[in-house]
Amino acid sequence: MIVLHHLNKSRSKRIIWLLEELGVEYRIEAYQRDAQSNLAPEALKAVHPLGKSPVIEHKGRVIAESGAITEFLCQQYRPDMIPAADSDDYIDYLQWMHFAESSAILPLLLKMFIDKDGAKMNMLDQYAQAEVAKVMGFFNDKAGANFLIGNTLSGADIMMSFIVDALHRSGALAFFPNLQRYYEFLASQDLFQKADEIEAKLDTAVSMVEA
Amino acid sequence: MIVLHHLNKSRSKRIIWLLEELGVEYRIEAYQRDAQSNLAPEALKAVHPLGKSPVIEHKGRVIAESGAITEFLCQQYRPDMIPAADSDDYIDYLQWMHFAESSAILPLLLKMFIDKDGAKMNMLDQYAQAEVAKVMGFFNDKAGANFLIGNTLSGADIMMSFIVDALHRSGALAFFPNLQRYYEFLASQDLFQKADEIEAKLDTAVSMVEA
Repeated sequence: MIVLHHLNKSRSKRIIWLLEELGVEYRIEAYQRDAQSNLAPEALKAVHPLGKSPVIEHKGRVIAESGAITEFLCQQYRPDMIPAADSDDYIDYLQWMHFAESSAILPLLLKMFIDKDGAKMNMLDQYAQAEVAKVMGFFNDKAGANFLIGNTLSGADIMMSFIVDALHRSGALAFFPNLQRYYEFLASQDLFQKADEIEAKLDTAVSMVEA
Repeated sequence: MIVLHHLNKSRSKRIIWLLEELGVEYRIEAYQRDAQSNLAPEALKAVHPLGKSPVIEHKGRVIAESGAITEFLCQQYRPDMIPAADSDDYIDYLQWMHFAESSAILPLLLKMFIDKDGAKMNMLDQYAQAEVAKVMGFFNDKAGANFLIGNTLSGADIMMSFIVDALHRSGALAFFPNLQRYYEFLASQDLFQKADEIEAKLDTAVSMVEA
């Protein structure tokens, strides 16, 4: 059985959605962020030295990195979620798969880190803001009320769902109308909603244990 | 013919190395960073809206993201640089392919941005330093004087070469002995050296034109 080591309010939520779409048996080990520091707990380091989430266990192998997990699981269980290798769509797929955790996430994290630090910067805050606008503007130009590639769910939507989810939670979707439509489209999918509910329940459950 | 839109001192250097390993015909369009701001020139935005490098043109398609470019070109021209899909090595390959431009690069860029900004931070500088130590420590535990996977060159080495190259240029390799050995091993490869020379020449050539 696949095990997902899941940290709440993290990139890992997309893997719950993916696992639901795969239709395979899986089990979640849930971890919570430190209430003060917001950092992942030390316990995740016992799973993988980087101490991050998502990490999965699959037939005795520990696999990290959202992109690697999504690519691997789609190949194993839902090859229809990867466009044909000789198609034009496949090139789009590859670009989204890598864009999500490199070009897209970097300015969002940079802005989040700067806001959290609170120090007065010389130019880094303006740089981060400009980069968010540029990168999300690019994504906004490509997105709409449909799956990203060929009107059908692919690994690209799994990967990019975390980006629009993060924009949604920060209130920034209001500035990107196509991303708003894309987020609402994804949020209308049954198994996306189910993943949302699973994550919410895990959060509450552990908070209750801690209380 | 493949065209590489190459920005000096960028992630794009790894794609020169890759193109050399592919043994295909290619052409480089060279761009230089702004001498003051160190930013990529506006001209790159005409190639791809993100204005970044590397970007390639392949049979009329513009392809961005180092990971997508490396995966795509290996599939097309050097499938032997990708481990067999049903092998354990393939899981390692996928993880390195995504690690390079997500977990590995993020703390390096964060530290570079913070140093460049120069403002006194509350905790972000310490966080970045700790993350660099953790992530590069992990990489150091896995690397040595050999290719990363199965004693043979793969896309994973192409992707991770930029990380050790960046550590080399910043002087940080001294703290990571296995990464030092890995860098020296890569730097002993004929076509890695050729790529180094090509990049160095491009830099000089344009500087001379500008002078």
